[in-house]
Amino acid sequence: MTVNEFEAELRKVAVEGYYDKHEFHKLLHGGKLNRGQLQAWALNRYYFQACAPRKDATLISRSGSRDFRREWTLRLLDHDGFGQDEGGLERWLKLTDGLGLARNDVLAMRGVLPETVKTVEGYLDYVRTKPFVAAVATTLTELLAPKLHRERMTSMIDAYPFLDKEILTYFKQRFTHAPRDASFALDYVKRNACSREDQVACLAAVTYKCSMLTALLDALFDAYVRGNIPPGAFTPSLELVKR
Amino acid sequence: MTVNEFEAELRKVAVEGYYDKHEFHKLLHGGKLNRGQLQAWALNRYYFQACAPRKDATLISRSGSRDFRREWTLRLLDHDGFGQDEGGLERWLKLTDGLGLARNDVLAMRGVLPETVKTVEGYLDYVRTKPFVAAVATTLTELLAPKLHRERMTSMIDAYPFLDKEILTYFKQRFTHAPRDASFALDYVKRNACSREDQVACLAAVTYKCSMLTALLDALFDAYVRGNIPPGAFTPSLELVKR
Repeated sequence: MTVNEFEAELRKVAVEGYYDKHEFHKLLHGGKLNRGQLQAWALNRYYFQACAPRKDATLISRSGSRDFRREWTLRLLDHDGFGQDEGGLERWLKLTDGLGLARNDVLAMRGVLPETVKTVEGYLDYVRTKPFVAAVATTLTELLAPKLHRERMTSMIDAYPFLDKEILTYFKQRFTHAPRDASFALDYVKRNACSREDQVACLAAVTYKCSMLTALLDALFDAYVRGNIPPGAFTPSLELVKR
Repeated sequence: MTVNEFEAELRKVAVEGYYDKHEFHKLLHGGKLNRGQLQAWALNRYYFQACAPRKDATLISRSGSRDFRREWTLRLLDHDGFGQDEGGLERWLKLTDGLGLARNDVLAMRGVLPETVKTVEGYLDYVRTKPFVAAVATTLTELLAPKLHRERMTSMIDAYPFLDKEILTYFKQRFTHAPRDASFALDYVKRNACSREDQVACLAAVTYKCSMLTALLDALFDAYVRGNIPPGAFTPSLELVKR
């Protein structure tokens, strides 16, 4: 594939596999979740968020290029904060606070679905063990994130009046950072996936990442919409599941 | 061991094993190396320097604590630079430039001793695979680095008139950063090596690190003082080995 064909394929795979068509996602953005379901979403999603700096540090640890590491270190600063900036993880905790979850439970990841744990830990393994350029390519779903975060910010403020703007600041920060990150990663992948084999590995990596994000929503849907909450998993209190 | 006994043991192991008593080190600081030997030292040491950000990112990737990651990320910024700061690796390249080595050769690590490669890559494996607190403890040799860097700065400026102060800025920067890094790491190890087994693993880690640093100097001594330069390794040009 030429570089342009390769980029078009990457974008196609990302768009087709992206989780914005998932039923749980539609319920979330459509304001159809009750507060208990929102809590379950935020708690499980926190497990994924908390793995992000570890995933990014893994990529940094695998790179022999100072330029790559310098750029990718910006992601660590975004997640964990730097100086006065509290960082994205802390902003996510503001969301779980705002939803009424006990912070210590969230930090200890108490009640997270087994499927979430398995899926996220599998992602860390993927990034540690796959060819480096494919590991980088897993992040390309971020090409689609800004649009989704913008929608989420608007639709969730409208749909869930008990969530104030303050609580959703995480998504606002990502408006500026996600495009910067995604464009660096796309450029890197295009320049470094030189062989057919590399390109195929990168396309497989985007497919993998989409299926991984989908698996997180499948698990939430099964447990908290269908009601198959596994033993030990977070169970919303009764008054929060009334709409 | 109590925490105080443990700290005393850690310091004892570090002091006893530290490479400042090595013959090659004495030649270096005593102004006894010719320019060709200095080049060989700087080139091989660059391989070790270049692994530092990867080692630090590995530790970050293994930590579930945001506080640990935030602190340790400062090391990445020190090595690779941040914003206007060029970073420690770039300052090390100023030293190899100043010694007359071609920068492209240094960046490609052309002519680095096989023993250097093996030793440094072994260190990265150690940090990736050993118990986390022991992996952190490998960095405790930095407790001794500031004194050594200060001596190096003074003695090398006196001993090698062709090296100007500018070229040695790497060591100057470490005056302030190494104590900050080492005191955080020592505090972390003391608080987190709770069992006898952990403490023993940490002491073994400091011993390992000392032997690893010694192995780097052994290889330099054998190749460039005794003259057993292996095939393919950097060979100084004849006029640089005259004193």
